[in-house]
Amino acid sequence: MNRKNSVRTIPAFAGFLLLVAVIACTSITPGEAQRWYPSRWGAADQRGAANRLTPAKVLEAKDLIKQGMVYQLGRVYESGMPMFGTRHYSLRIPQTFKIAGSNQAMYHDELVSGELGQVGTQFDGLGHLGIGDLFYNGNNRTEFAQPEGLTKLGIENVGPIMTRGVLIDVARLKGKAQLESNYEITAADLQAALKSESIEIRPGDVVLVHTGWGSLWMKDNATYSKTSPGIGVAAAQFLADKEVTVVGADNWGVEVNPNPDASLGAPVHQLLLARNGIYLHENLNTEELARDAVYEFAYIFAPLRLKGATGSPGNPIAVR
Amino acid sequence: MNRKNSVRTIPAFAGFLLLVAVIACTSITPGEAQRWYPSRWGAADQRGAANRLTPAKVLEAKDLIKQGMVYQLGRVYESGMPMFGTRHYSLRIPQTFKIAGSNQAMYHDELVSGELGQVGTQFDGLGHLGIGDLFYNGNNRTEFAQPEGLTKLGIENVGPIMTRGVLIDVARLKGKAQLESNYEITAADLQAALKSESIEIRPGDVVLVHTGWGSLWMKDNATYSKTSPGIGVAAAQFLADKEVTVVGADNWGVEVNPNPDASLGAPVHQLLLARNGIYLHENLNTEELARDAVYEFAYIFAPLRLKGATGSPGNPIAVR
Amino acid sequence: MNRKNSVRTIPAFAGFLLLVAVIACTSITPGEAQRWYPSRWGAADQRGAANRLTPAKVLEAKDLIKQGMVYQLGRVYESGMPMFGTRHYSLRIPQTFKIAGSNQAMYHDELVSGELGQVGTQFDGLGHLGIGDLFYNGNNRTEFAQPEGLTKLGIENVGPIMTRGVLIDVARLKGKAQLESNYEITAADLQAALKSESIEIRPGDVVLVHTGWGSLWMKDNATYSKTSPGIGVAAAQFLADKEVTVVGADNWGVEVNPNPDASLGAPVHQLLLARNGIYLHENLNTEELARDAVYEFAYIFAPLRLKGATGSPGNPIAVR
Amino acid sequence: MNRKNSVRTIPAFAGFLLLVAVIACTSITPGEAQRWYPSRWGAADQRGAANRLTPAKVLEAKDLIKQGMVYQLGRVYESGMPMFGTRHYSLRIPQTFKIAGSNQAMYHDELVSGELGQVGTQFDGLGHLGIGDLFYNGNNRTEFAQPEGLTKLGIENVGPIMTRGVLIDVARLKGKAQLESNYEITAADLQAALKSESIEIRPGDVVLVHTGWGSLWMKDNATYSKTSPGIGVAAAQFLADKEVTVVGADNWGVEVNPNPDASLGAPVHQLLLARNGIYLHENLNTEELARDAVYEFAYIFAPLRLKGATGSPGNPIAVR
Repeated sequence: MNRKNSVRTIPAFAGFLLLVAVIACTSITPGEAQRWYPSRWGAADQRGAANRLTPAKVLEAKDLIKQGMVYQLGRVYESGMPMFGTRHYSLRIPQTFKIAGSNQAMYHDELVSGELGQVGTQFDGLGHLGIGDLFYNGNNRTEFAQPEGLTKLGIENVGPIMTRGVLIDVARLKGKAQLESNYEITAADLQAALKSESIEIRPGDVVLVHTGWGSLWMKDNATYSKTSPGIGVAAAQFLADKEVTVVGADNWGVEVNPNPDASLGAPVHQLLLARNGIYLHENLNTEELARDAVYEFAYIFAPLRLKGATGSPGNPIAVR
Repeated sequence: MNRKNSVRTIPAFAGFLLLVAVIACTSITPGEAQRWYPSRWGAADQRGAANRLTPAKVLEAKDLIKQGMVYQLGRVYESGMPMFGTRHYSLRIPQTFKIAGSNQAMYHDELVSGELGQVGTQFDGLGHLGIGDLFYNGNNRTEFAQPEGLTKLGIENVGPIMTRGVLIDVARLKGKAQLESNYEITAADLQAALKSESIEIRPGDVVLVHTGWGSLWMKDNATYSKTSPGIGVAAAQFLADKEVTVVGADNWGVEVNPNPDASLGAPVHQLLLARNGIYLHENLNTEELARDAVYEFAYIFAPLRLKGATGSPGNPIAVR
Repeated sequence: MNRKNSVRTIPAFAGFLLLVAVIACTSITPGEAQRWYPSRWGAADQRGAANRLTPAKVLEAKDLIKQGMVYQLGRVYESGMPMFGTRHYSLRIPQTFKIAGSNQAMYHDELVSGELGQVGTQFDGLGHLGIGDLFYNGNNRTEFAQPEGLTKLGIENVGPIMTRGVLIDVARLKGKAQLESNYEITAADLQAALKSESIEIRPGDVVLVHTGWGSLWMKDNATYSKTSPGIGVAAAQFLADKEVTVVGADNWGVEVNPNPDASLGAPVHQLLLARNGIYLHENLNTEELARDAVYEFAYIFAPLRLKGATGSPGNPIAVR
Repeated sequence: MNRKNSVRTIPAFAGFLLLVAVIACTSITPGEAQRWYPSRWGAADQRGAANRLTPAKVLEAKDLIKQGMVYQLGRVYESGMPMFGTRHYSLRIPQTFKIAGSNQAMYHDELVSGELGQVGTQFDGLGHLGIGDLFYNGNNRTEFAQPEGLTKLGIENVGPIMTRGVLIDVARLKGKAQLESNYEITAADLQAALKSESIEIRPGDVVLVHTGWGSLWMKDNATYSKTSPGIGVAAAQFLADKEVTVVGADNWGVEVNPNPDASLGAPVHQLLLARNGIYLHENLNTEELARDAVYEFAYIFAPLRLKGATGSPGNPIAVR
């Protein structure tokens, strides 16, 4: 039964206590709550910054395609790739199937299991991470996080993304192949890099941050996963103020890990996903874009429509 | 050990027998074998018709984008969707994870298991189906079909696809919302429909066939899965002669099922995948394209880079 | 972080509200709560009725073994078996693995996925079902139900079970091969059947109820799963008062489904698991025991030690 | 279609070649083949040494139960346990399910995926490993190893095992807590240990070998998995000659790894499983038995009836 029904079964007094409880359980004060919802797209919105995707942005992206060159930003999903915590990814090819017929058709399937939206190159949806029990637009996980899938904020709500993409090469700005293991990228870093690239960010853009950390992928997975340079809260706020749609990077969490403020866990995720409805794209391969100094391009990605999922795997592309 | 090593361990005579065996096991005569390999792209090629994708085709597709309208061709992956045989698809949201910190970050993952490249909207790779033991370019399944993934013809070899897309609305040609349950679409049907649409097929195009069968998806799954109208061998040969890259449809196998020739199982799969290296895209949603009479568009799809997989799920898009 | 830590981060007042909340959230009044915990085995106990298993009961079971006849009570796990809701069970044999060596060792694995402790013949642990948020011994699911496994009441705590087993053949009592589809077995039914079998129940026993419903397994799965005859609350209380360790049956939920009181869902599960720490064994094959009129036997079952699992699959045996 | 049907579709000559092929493909000469099949239990037998299990052996085991003490020989299945190659084991607890009703029943499932019969404490069935393409009783993997399960030699054929168990403590014989990392246990070692224990092996027994290697489990998994002391071919032949039913050990492969003869891979598996139909039980916990000097006991284990599986997980018990 859904919570609403269960509530009916409780005496009025307990009902009142439950009301109080919901506030208490969220572990944040109403004051804090008011900071971020209802969202600018209305109290019923489930798509967040995807609302910034318009035919105009599609055409803006189209106009950036001049040479017909396509860059794959997605990593290969394979056994042994860097994995967070106890997540897993397994692929097996079953014995060959034979189809009846004189033409002897034989075929193969593949059995895959894993935290599919949260392994390898992954696109974080708005149901992935919240502040206490409250997620984007004030949706309470105790309501929408159901065993068979999220009943709100599922990745199937996002839709295809074709928009202007911008690469901010912070490693280049710092004159390094790779930023330090726990370097916090600041708003000033982003602004300086953008200036050096003669690029500005526009509403609805997808911004990819190149840290150089991605060069460790499948070369030194232990180091890659242990910590990572990435944007801090201030840089994230800068991007949120620019009204972007997605923030991606060539590291495993987009944000700096661990956060310089040891008391904080994944604050950038909270700022972008929960407070601003802005998506994250992690474990991207931005090496070729950086190598070729491609700072502006058409970013194209359509999340797998996994009903009720928290994220999506995929192979986003940059076209110029 | 791989087969090659094992062979070394066999006495010469047994070795000779094995040589004979390989031919016998393939269940086709050398004569037949010579029909389709080595491929036109060389004996080492693993990408087949994906070799037809060029910057020129990307620009050709780009020029078809005039309104910035995006159509999702991918179905939602969900419990209860039509499934072939005993394949399965399962998604569960584990209990909420809590991250240490005063900011109380909480997050969700999703556990997914299934024949991922062969459920729902699926893109068939060249390692999916063969003729006896021989697949595209004469690759022998006993060599490349390994338990941890295909060592050749894996879906990760395909790369992103951005090219001209063409919709052939055969249902419209026949003046029906939906073709009969086991109607074989002929080459003449395709030609007539193309003529009525004033569209021609060019090398490297992706051709989508609208049968109307897709309207049964999640409405009458039993009927949808039991049989299906689709292209026959002659129509497939017509498309192969046009040098297309992918053939897709709004049914579960692209081809007519069962085949009018009861002695044949999946002959169109063999003709397109094994003999011509042309990919298949199944269980597509072509309803909106047909409704809006969009017969020419930019088709964009980047298969999930699942190392050694036979196919890929996904959400291909048509942009105009 | 665990909830305890998070609580520290909440202002005192919110902390008080949360305290109130915990009571409210459990959706039962403290009065109700006091009915069943702390358990008779102490507030820290996680094994419930498994505490009734002693060397004396093992020897009592041993003395029932006179002919050396072994009965399998477990069903075969296979594709297409009756399944509750959207649970799944999948088994695939990957391509053959080859081991390097002149002796040409080749081997097969199997890839299995599913709600393993809750499909087919299944043994319900104390972490499976509760009353509101409270489970056996008052453990709160918001504390112990963690994504990577239950941190309390996991099936690994049960340990092997070798004890006296008793079969109560209610179908025989009623002179039927099979009880009606939603017949509620009463305490009087159990007593009458026991009397006709000249059997009494002793503390620590495992009691299996034969309803005849199991004869539908893999013969008419739709009927088998739709409803089922089984024990009602009063019969369950009768068995709890007899201080048994496990209650099993040849149906999918042990208890009558739906319950004659339409406002109740799984009340027998709550009475046995949550209030009395008594385990359930579902989807058993009791046909041979009933056929041979074996009413007393050694019941032997060792749950799979799946850390943090809610239940266990298995093949319990009855030996006489 | 099954191979038989497909053969029909091949011209007579190819048919003859295929016949030759089957012999050649097995990678062993007919001469070798004749060594081990048909089995002593007939050409149709699928149970091998399980045929040695009789009511008499059950009663023999029963008579060894004198104190009612039960030892768990199975390890806990958990994340991070030693794993062979790229096998995996994953368990997750989905969000809590709520059942409609005024009694507010809530329940948990667990989602498990992995090579279930071949991870952790595992019982190897006769379909697990063969000599070339030939397995126990000459069954050819190209016939019975089907994607949805083994059509012969599946673990469901074994049935419950209750028989006399014997522990051979070789570590104790050598005066060590643990044998060297790659020590090959000889037939003489087994005989000497048996003599020191005043125990003899009888037909139908289950023999467990204590090497002490198990003390590394979850303490030093890297060392545990890298190599292991265990029985060699001669010791295995000694046990086969004693007509045992199962050979188990506290290591990951029962046999010494790597084999002193570098050209051999898993020869003991071949000798016991393929040639003699004797089962293997791996990753057992024999520490308590060794500590208490329990050399004779009732061994009880009922493999999970996973249709078409190669092995079974489980928690075998020793009772005395």
